Amino acid sequence: MVKSTIAISIGDLNGIGIEIALKSHTEVSKLCHPIYCITQDMLEQSVTMLGVKIPKDIQLQNSGESFQIQAGTICKESGKYSYDSFMTAIALCEEKKADAVVTMPIHKEAWMQAGLHYKGHTDLLRQHFKQDAIMMLGSPNMFVALVTEHIPLRDVTKVINSKMLKEFLLTLHKSIPKVPIAVLGINPHSGDNGVLGDEDIQVKKAIKSANETLGFEQFIGPIVPDVAFTPHFREKFNYFVAMYHDQGLAPLKALYFDESINISLNLPIIRTSVDHGTAFDIAYKNRAKTLSYRNAIETALNFIA
Amino acid sequence: MVKSTIAISIGDLNGIGIEIALKSHTEVSKLCHPIYCITQDMLEQSVTMLGVKIPKDIQLQNSGESFQIQAGTICKESGKYSYDSFMTAIALCEEKKADAVVTMPIHKEAWMQAGLHYKGHTDLLRQHFKQDAIMMLGSPNMFVALVTEHIPLRDVTKVINSKMLKEFLLTLHKSIPKVPIAVLGINPHSGDNGVLGDEDIQVKKAIKSANETLGFEQFIGPIVPDVAFTPHFREKFNYFVAMYHDQGLAPLKALYFDESINISLNLPIIRTSVDHGTAFDIAYKNRAKTLSYRNAIETALNFIA
Repeated sequence: MVKSTIAISIGDLNGIGIEIALKSHTEVSKLCHPIYCITQDMLEQSVTMLGVKIPKDIQLQNSGESFQIQAGTICKESGKYSYDSFMTAIALCEEKKADAVVTMPIHKEAWMQAGLHYKGHTDLLRQHFKQDAIMMLGSPNMFVALVTEHIPLRDVTKVINSKMLKEFLLTLHKSIPKVPIAVLGINPHSGDNGVLGDEDIQVKKAIKSANETLGFEQFIGPIVPDVAFTPHFREKFNYFVAMYHDQGLAPLKALYFDESINISLNLPIIRTSVDHGTAFDIAYKNRAKTLSYRNAIETALNFIA
Repeated sequence: MVKSTIAISIGDLNGIGIEIALKSHTEVSKLCHPIYCITQDMLEQSVTMLGVKIPKDIQLQNSGESFQIQAGTICKESGKYSYDSFMTAIALCEEKKADAVVTMPIHKEAWMQAGLHYKGHTDLLRQHFKQDAIMMLGSPNMFVALVTEHIPLRDVTKVINSKMLKEFLLTLHKSIPKVPIAVLGINPHSGDNGVLGDEDIQVKKAIKSANETLGFEQFIGPIVPDVAFTPHFREKFNYFVAMYHDQGLAPLKALYFDESINISLNLPIIRTSVDHGTAFDIAYKNRAKTLSYRNAIETALNFIA
């Protein structure tokens, strides 16, 4: 079988991304054919600082303008470089030279300094493809798709209604067509039959309507939010839909912090990412963990298949 | 050392409480002196159904009117009996004949059928003592106190402000006077400096003001909600303050479902409880787990000490 090709967006070079990529290269190369979006001279700077050698079988894709790496520093040059690396990786997918993009972390403030006003990778992807990506986070055992993301808590119930939720579920179905998916309620105890808020009636309606459209019961719920991630439910479900950011991500990170990843669904390309930041405090100190990255690679491969 | 005396509120006798109490009696008796609030004839009914013997050293406190136990059935007689058992246990504490109350689960609908219109144990305690109890849940490694409990999600940001939160923290301090306590933010990323809602500014203010009143930094935060329960923070803190029900309880139950307990703080008596329901589906089938009950006993003893 021909291995899939994955374009690696190298992230902020003042952070831990490059260390993780190099540390994992041999293992990752067994699974796929990685193309690193970085220039030869920037790679050379990195390996010198890390005290390692450049793997012989490495393939690079030129991108970005060279600069002086300063471990753990926010700067516009590094911000711009990480942006260029990401755009290059996207282009490789658009040109069918790669099957997926895996992204190392960027630093939002470095992007700001470089005049790049995106909230992050997903925001840029939405604007680039003019399509409403779904953000899903998870580990190989448990994925959580978010109905709402980076909005104030007070706005969650204003944004969610049965129409938008039904559309969300049907869109999610396109990326995850077969397995049963647990849909969480909004209120404590999913509203206890309306006693603790009536929003969960909307959730119930959306689930029913989406299942009717599909012709089978893919979506199960509303599941009481505080029991959704107990062992019993995690045995039954690998995929969950959370109504808001912390409802899904607090349990996910409590359970699977080091290994969790981020995936953008409903886009023309497949993109997964590590779910940690640039970790400037440990940059170039040989302390970065690689599990999240390897899971990001494996998840991308699962979605290519 | 004289052992502490604990009054056991026996819960709904159509559920699993009595099985757990009897199964754990020998072990629990090593830690404390338990008084079970149940009549001899009801105990005899239970042990016959369970196929076990009545422990010789058992001490009972009469309470409630006898009825026919029906495993797994919601009925007003059983509801009333569980209420009487609870009130008897409270009375033992008020009369200084016991040092704490540990409660087995009651069934809210059975209480309703018996004409008892409380939302649960904590609600009854609040009304009985005319005092605003703090609800804290947890396992021996991680406790979560709730600023708001059973209210709709949309009301959370309406209820919380810096004044009420400061008062909450200072009240909590009375029960937990010494250890550092992590206080979660309200919005995703604790508002990202106001970009995702300005409520976390109130949280910050309340923490600062409470610490100033105390004269030391007991309260740390606002901690970003979705990283608060990652291993790093759980190593640093045993006590957490969550702003709303599912923010605290979803991660808690994801991590410690079988062992978690409930404790009422800021009351004239100490009361802990198992954090599971009556489990009518497995009543009198010898399948009930005892870990939550044993943790409830141990936590009560820690708070007596």
